[in-house]
Amino acid sequence: MSTQIGTEELDAVAQAELVRRGEVTAYQLTTAAIERIEALNPTLNAVITPLYDTALAAARLAPSGPLGGVPFLAKDLVAEIAGAPFSEGSRFVSGLVSGHDSELVRRWRRAGLIILGKTNTPEFGMVPACEPIAFGPTRNPWDPSRSTSGSSGGSAAAVAARLVPMAHGNDLGGSIRYPASACGLFGLKPTRARNPLGPEYGDAISGWACEHALTRSVRDSAVLLDATAGPALGDPYGVPLPDRPFAVEAGIDPGRLRIGYTAQTPDGSTPHPDCVAALDDAAALCASLGHELVETELPGLTPAVGKAIGTVFDAATAWIGEYWVRRLGRLPADDELEPLTRAYWERGRRVSAAAYLLAIEDCQAFARVVARWLTGIDVWLTPTLSMPPATIGEITSTAEDPLRAGRAGGRTVAYAGVVANLTGNPAMSVPLYWNADGLPIGVHFLGRYGDEATLFRLAAQLESARPWAHRRPPLLPQ
Amino acid sequence: MSTQIGTEELDAVAQAELVRRGEVTAYQLTTAAIERIEALNPTLNAVITPLYDTALAAARLAPSGPLGGVPFLAKDLVAEIAGAPFSEGSRFVSGLVSGHDSELVRRWRRAGLIILGKTNTPEFGMVPACEPIAFGPTRNPWDPSRSTSGSSGGSAAAVAARLVPMAHGNDLGGSIRYPASACGLFGLKPTRARNPLGPEYGDAISGWACEHALTRSVRDSAVLLDATAGPALGDPYGVPLPDRPFAVEAGIDPGRLRIGYTAQTPDGSTPHPDCVAALDDAAALCASLGHELVETELPGLTPAVGKAIGTVFDAATAWIGEYWVRRLGRLPADDELEPLTRAYWERGRRVSAAAYLLAIEDCQAFARVVARWLTGIDVWLTPTLSMPPATIGEITSTAEDPLRAGRAGGRTVAYAGVVANLTGNPAMSVPLYWNADGLPIGVHFLGRYGDEATLFRLAAQLESARPWAHRRPPLLPQ
Repeated sequence: MSTQIGTEELDAVAQAELVRRGEVTAYQLTTAAIERIEALNPTLNAVITPLYDTALAAARLAPSGPLGGVPFLAKDLVAEIAGAPFSEGSRFVSGLVSGHDSELVRRWRRAGLIILGKTNTPEFGMVPACEPIAFGPTRNPWDPSRSTSGSSGGSAAAVAARLVPMAHGNDLGGSIRYPASACGLFGLKPTRARNPLGPEYGDAISGWACEHALTRSVRDSAVLLDATAGPALGDPYGVPLPDRPFAVEAGIDPGRLRIGYTAQTPDGSTPHPDCVAALDDAAALCASLGHELVETELPGLTPAVGKAIGTVFDAATAWIGEYWVRRLGRLPADDELEPLTRAYWERGRRVSAAAYLLAIEDCQAFARVVARWLTGIDVWLTPTLSMPPATIGEITSTAEDPLRAGRAGGRTVAYAGVVANLTGNPAMSVPLYWNADGLPIGVHFLGRYGDEATLFRLAAQLESARPWAHRRPPLLPQ
Repeated sequence: MSTQIGTEELDAVAQAELVRRGEVTAYQLTTAAIERIEALNPTLNAVITPLYDTALAAARLAPSGPLGGVPFLAKDLVAEIAGAPFSEGSRFVSGLVSGHDSELVRRWRRAGLIILGKTNTPEFGMVPACEPIAFGPTRNPWDPSRSTSGSSGGSAAAVAARLVPMAHGNDLGGSIRYPASACGLFGLKPTRARNPLGPEYGDAISGWACEHALTRSVRDSAVLLDATAGPALGDPYGVPLPDRPFAVEAGIDPGRLRIGYTAQTPDGSTPHPDCVAALDDAAALCASLGHELVETELPGLTPAVGKAIGTVFDAATAWIGEYWVRRLGRLPADDELEPLTRAYWERGRRVSAAAYLLAIEDCQAFARVVARWLTGIDVWLTPTLSMPPATIGEITSTAEDPLRAGRAGGRTVAYAGVVANLTGNPAMSVPLYWNADGLPIGVHFLGRYGDEATLFRLAAQLESARPWAHRRPPLLPQ
């Protein structure tokens, strides 16, 4: 590994630059990443499906593109890779091999990324944890007794442990941002319809589901989004491309922003003091950078909207279940679904189409309230999670208590990151704080619809003012 | 009426120009339009709710805007007007008075339109006809024994009979284009999410429902769309605004277009020879203007997609019913819903959320096939309706045969204008042909997603080559 020493500490943009300058080859980056995976994955269980042969073959072709030659990992949920096993964390789906590349995957390849494997996810991505029965728990590099949160937990662990500089994540209710917080990473959920979901999906769950990535650097997230954004032919919706590339935004001074913030959880539950400390710290940092801080709470998240969100999630679970029944042409056996999935599906089965459409309209009405409120502030700051990373096993269910994982997971996400999914707004978790136990505690910024630009500008400023790149999980050589 | 003689023959743009030049006042245009309504509406039953007092008050304020002072009528479906009765063609809803202006209505007012009243619609807009039990049938100005088609039949009759130069329509499955065809008007359904649906709705029925208008001239449709297009704050989706105003496009040479066309109905049923003659005539006209004509059939509309469309319609009916139950706080009495509505609702009640979401995904997958096919042609030409206007009473149900209206209506729309709703593409009906009975038979052009510009350019060219403005229904003084 002599030629690659230290490349794993570089972000994707820097690795691609080395490749472009001929100082390292894509093949060398790939073999080095494979060595790291082989060394650390037995501890982490982040990568569930290695794709080394196709990765090495792709690396030999010396791919060009803005991220040419950079090792990458795909979350084993939603996006599919031709010839690769696909399971969505479920024993029911396990055994399937995808027959095509999703549009997003085609765009990763076009950008030059080398896909080294698939990362772990809870069954169908349904909890903020990453401990599927099918593949076992992914462990947090900052403390292997802890959860990565989720659902993009496998990708988060892989990036935090420097296996790859960036990895795929998706976010139907916080699933990029929660594990970014728990693993000390930058995680941005783009605006609704920014990235394509096809050809499998159109606007999955009325646009709640979003694709993107977990990265260590802000610019990596921006460069990747530049490479993947934009509707594909036949997409039901798109969002206008920005005036400037996101990569450019990530180097521009954000000016003086009006930043709303609160430590209050929408449900009135008490957040962990470490999360409040992370918020206070971030607010002070923002103020020191010249931003205006205004304490303000999210309006309009009434119990009726909360109920509508529950209806949409229940419907989504039933849809996912019935999607797989149709695609696989059979019903799941008793031992092929986790208790939580079965319980949610059972509940979702009873949701009528009319109830779903009423719930979506309720959520879209709430989105108008949020949009109006966001005219008064540029971004809104809260903790990302309401607790430090849970312990392994805490967010799991049993046959006797199938809803346990849902309840336990729910306690960690009291700040309702799902709001960004139902409004369609971009949002990000930024790793600015580590608690006394050395665990990362992210803070969350919600931006205006279509305005990733402001988030990237602010995130890059925070990254520069309070760098986190030097922080290495204790399981890595210090 | 001496000062207004002939103004009813002018399109909206010309009427607004007269107002701007001080040759006529908004008040004079308004009183003249009221006189026309009073004279002809007893025959037509196009206007079900006059709003003369507020119209005259608005006219007295000499509104500015691109359509300042132009008389207008609103379809009594979806969009709401503060202080005006709202019924959606239903005895169940009848009696309600709207408490607010919809965003679209606010934009009409901003454009200077004077809203003179509400036009008739079948109950909840569910059939290509306009004969609600609540208000009785609207009659076709070209033959009062005939249907206007629908659901924007009241508006179509009003515009065809020169009561107003343009009127509001909406289109969940062809409801702007079908009555445009049956009444000899220009009717364009914009791209999904082009016009706002709020604050009541977000992307109603996954974006199938579209708002716009029926006009006599092409430029009127373009000017109105310029005035109303663009997402409102908090909308779930938008479509990028065009490079140039639509009004400008409506005066630009379309160049040589590759126009696909077919007389084949997707279901293989036999269209009426008059509709085939209208198609052949339009194809010949397009060829004579230098366009390339290519015979091609719509791909991908499989029985599975047909079933998915049915599922979405059933779900939509149940949603509309339950929306009104919730809004009114009570269930409909036995005699408050038409038999067809009750039958559809009953069927829709059994559609689960998961089945709805699967159906939407099936439709969105079909939209990809259509989009790819449309890369080979610029627009696709068919007849709009598969039959000349039906007779009054033909598209109605009875207690014994509640689905009769649905079946009879379905036979008139075998060209499946709903395809444009499920793909989100813009589409238009252009009045180029009148049959031997003097009945208008429109032709339909489906455009690419977001590309109203090409439709407006082509429509204006056709309007210039084969003007229809001089054609007056026989019930008007000839």
